[in-house]
Amino acid sequence: MIGAFFLATTLAVAQAPPSPSPVPPPSRPRVDSPVVDAGRISFGLYSPQAREVLLRSGDIERVLPGVAKAFTRAENGVWSLTVGPVPPGLYEYAYDVDGMPIADPETGNIVTNLRSSRSMVEVLGPPETRLEQWRQVPHGTVAIHWYDSKVTASRRRVHVYTPPGYGESGTARYPVLYLLHGFSGHDGQWVENGRANVIADNLAAEGKLVPMIIVMPDGHPYFPKPGEPNPEATRLAKFEDDLLKEVIPLVERSYRVKADRTQRAITGLSMGGGQSLAVGLRNGDRFAWLGAFSGSLGAALPLIPTAGAAATAFNERTRLLWVGVGRQDTYGLPQGRGIAEKFKAAGVHYKYVETEGAHTWSVWRVYLAEFLPLLFRS
Amino acid sequence: MIGAFFLATTLAVAQAPPSPSPVPPPSRPRVDSPVVDAGRISFGLYSPQAREVLLRSGDIERVLPGVAKAFTRAENGVWSLTVGPVPPGLYEYAYDVDGMPIADPETGNIVTNLRSSRSMVEVLGPPETRLEQWRQVPHGTVAIHWYDSKVTASRRRVHVYTPPGYGESGTARYPVLYLLHGFSGHDGQWVENGRANVIADNLAAEGKLVPMIIVMPDGHPYFPKPGEPNPEATRLAKFEDDLLKEVIPLVERSYRVKADRTQRAITGLSMGGGQSLAVGLRNGDRFAWLGAFSGSLGAALPLIPTAGAAATAFNERTRLLWVGVGRQDTYGLPQGRGIAEKFKAAGVHYKYVETEGAHTWSVWRVYLAEFLPLLFRS
Repeated sequence: MIGAFFLATTLAVAQAPPSPSPVPPPSRPRVDSPVVDAGRISFGLYSPQAREVLLRSGDIERVLPGVAKAFTRAENGVWSLTVGPVPPGLYEYAYDVDGMPIADPETGNIVTNLRSSRSMVEVLGPPETRLEQWRQVPHGTVAIHWYDSKVTASRRRVHVYTPPGYGESGTARYPVLYLLHGFSGHDGQWVENGRANVIADNLAAEGKLVPMIIVMPDGHPYFPKPGEPNPEATRLAKFEDDLLKEVIPLVERSYRVKADRTQRAITGLSMGGGQSLAVGLRNGDRFAWLGAFSGSLGAALPLIPTAGAAATAFNERTRLLWVGVGRQDTYGLPQGRGIAEKFKAAGVHYKYVETEGAHTWSVWRVYLAEFLPLLFRS
Repeated sequence: MIGAFFLATTLAVAQAPPSPSPVPPPSRPRVDSPVVDAGRISFGLYSPQAREVLLRSGDIERVLPGVAKAFTRAENGVWSLTVGPVPPGLYEYAYDVDGMPIADPETGNIVTNLRSSRSMVEVLGPPETRLEQWRQVPHGTVAIHWYDSKVTASRRRVHVYTPPGYGESGTARYPVLYLLHGFSGHDGQWVENGRANVIADNLAAEGKLVPMIIVMPDGHPYFPKPGEPNPEATRLAKFEDDLLKEVIPLVERSYRVKADRTQRAITGLSMGGGQSLAVGLRNGDRFAWLGAFSGSLGAALPLIPTAGAAATAFNERTRLLWVGVGRQDTYGLPQGRGIAEKFKAAGVHYKYVETEGAHTWSVWRVYLAEFLPLLFRS
């Protein structure tokens, strides 16, 4: 009887129970992973015949340069490694098992994208020091909408954050931020890995932002066929078309929004940073607030207003043009610096931010926390 | 430049791209997994030094008894196995790599619970033959609420499905089903793995159900400390308290519901089946429709009305008492049969269903599709 088993082994109940499963679980030692204690993180993996297990984590190496990566094997086939203490934070990691990259199978806290090959672990700190940590404050709600897009002839999905009190307030109308994920990500990722709702809740509780709705669309309108010419341009065009013809109308008929360009912002990370700048620059009649986090900016470059009348008109109608990138982001850094130079040469008003960090969620959460308080102030 | 790489390798773009990652991806052959073609499923895994890779899938073995499980290794370290054809369906599976159980790292479609050690693959069929398959019909919306529960002194979460048209209809009020997950699951699992929203959308489009709101609470109000006496009873009591004092009030102040016992149903799977029967039997003033799918029913047994006046009163106030279990469910079958006998002996009206199948989502999706059309008819 499972019931009796639970009673006898409360530790097993606490964290890694036998789940209802059609997959017969092989009999094996119990493993808890990751376990955080006083800033130290202990990783574990049952792999009885592996020869080498390594930790792969750019996030942890950043805070602990030269940290040991090799796990130690116990006689029962359980491998373990303890690192730290590390500062409070959200850390991504993966395992390398004899050259095979996998997520930590003992945690459900994974980086969700088209694969499932990375995990996350949080080291809590004093809540007031971390905007990405849950606090006991009023919480917003996230709704998942599915729609059959005429633009892509497929079923698509969008996540929508409404601020604390939205459901009860009844009549207030809100500005809207469109917040885009990166390549291979999905529309739920800014919540699951980016903590956008937590950051917005915490900033709202501190009175540091204009309460807003945050719409997180799916940035992959289709997946190109092998050999298809120029899939990047097609993806961008379809994304833009779907956003303008499907997502924005869905949002504006389902939510109490201020449907005005001065009340509409767009930003995103990596691929989504490129999409947000390209769509934003091309649709000045729709968006007055633009951002790009570690953006993939090739398609945006030709859309920068030329110096003179075009730049002046852009400056008059645009409330914010914000570009941020990490100094260790070998992919994004040259693109961020490149576009900032072009903005400067054109005489376009912009804000360019370089921070420590690579092409990673730990940077993007910080950028979101910087970006949100700037919006809808004028 | 990643951009140039994408252009040159569109196949890589299509399914398993290099994602923005702080984890340096080891250089390795590209793997797509799973790939479905004409009902055949091809699994792949890069594991250069493994000695044996096996497929573990009760779901697939059920439709293909004696199916080959051993993967074949190619020279480049990629292991592969093709099975089928299999009938259209949703199949759970895992890998066994030299005795180490893992999910398929090449897919983001995983069974989400406290771990991440199983994956899912769907073989599509004609949509009209499968209620769990997405159709081009009006779709409902799923909202995620977070709340700070006074009962548990912790932050908790609940998913809420609203039917198609809810957001636009403005004034209609709806009955509510409380739908519970199993042990080690979470409140999003009936959507992610159970397809509750898809099943409800499809039944609604066929005119086969009374449109309703479906509330999916978190069935783990706390995790017991090692050595804590009787954690099952404490869990049930806290769950019930949180449901009645936090979740139902949250739902009834946030949604247009019919807040009446005849308009309130509760069911769930495994642990959630036990919770739903126990809470439902103990709170006849709140719930008139009760169900349990493959339930863990020990705590419900003492609550069955005794023969005579109590049973008569129960029959008068209860609109449905539904218990279902699979014949291959070695855990649930004796409990389902046992409680059905007690219902019969007490003279309680009930519906008891035995089907082919084990303790698995493939059974629970079918039960939900059977259960929903029965609700709120009287």
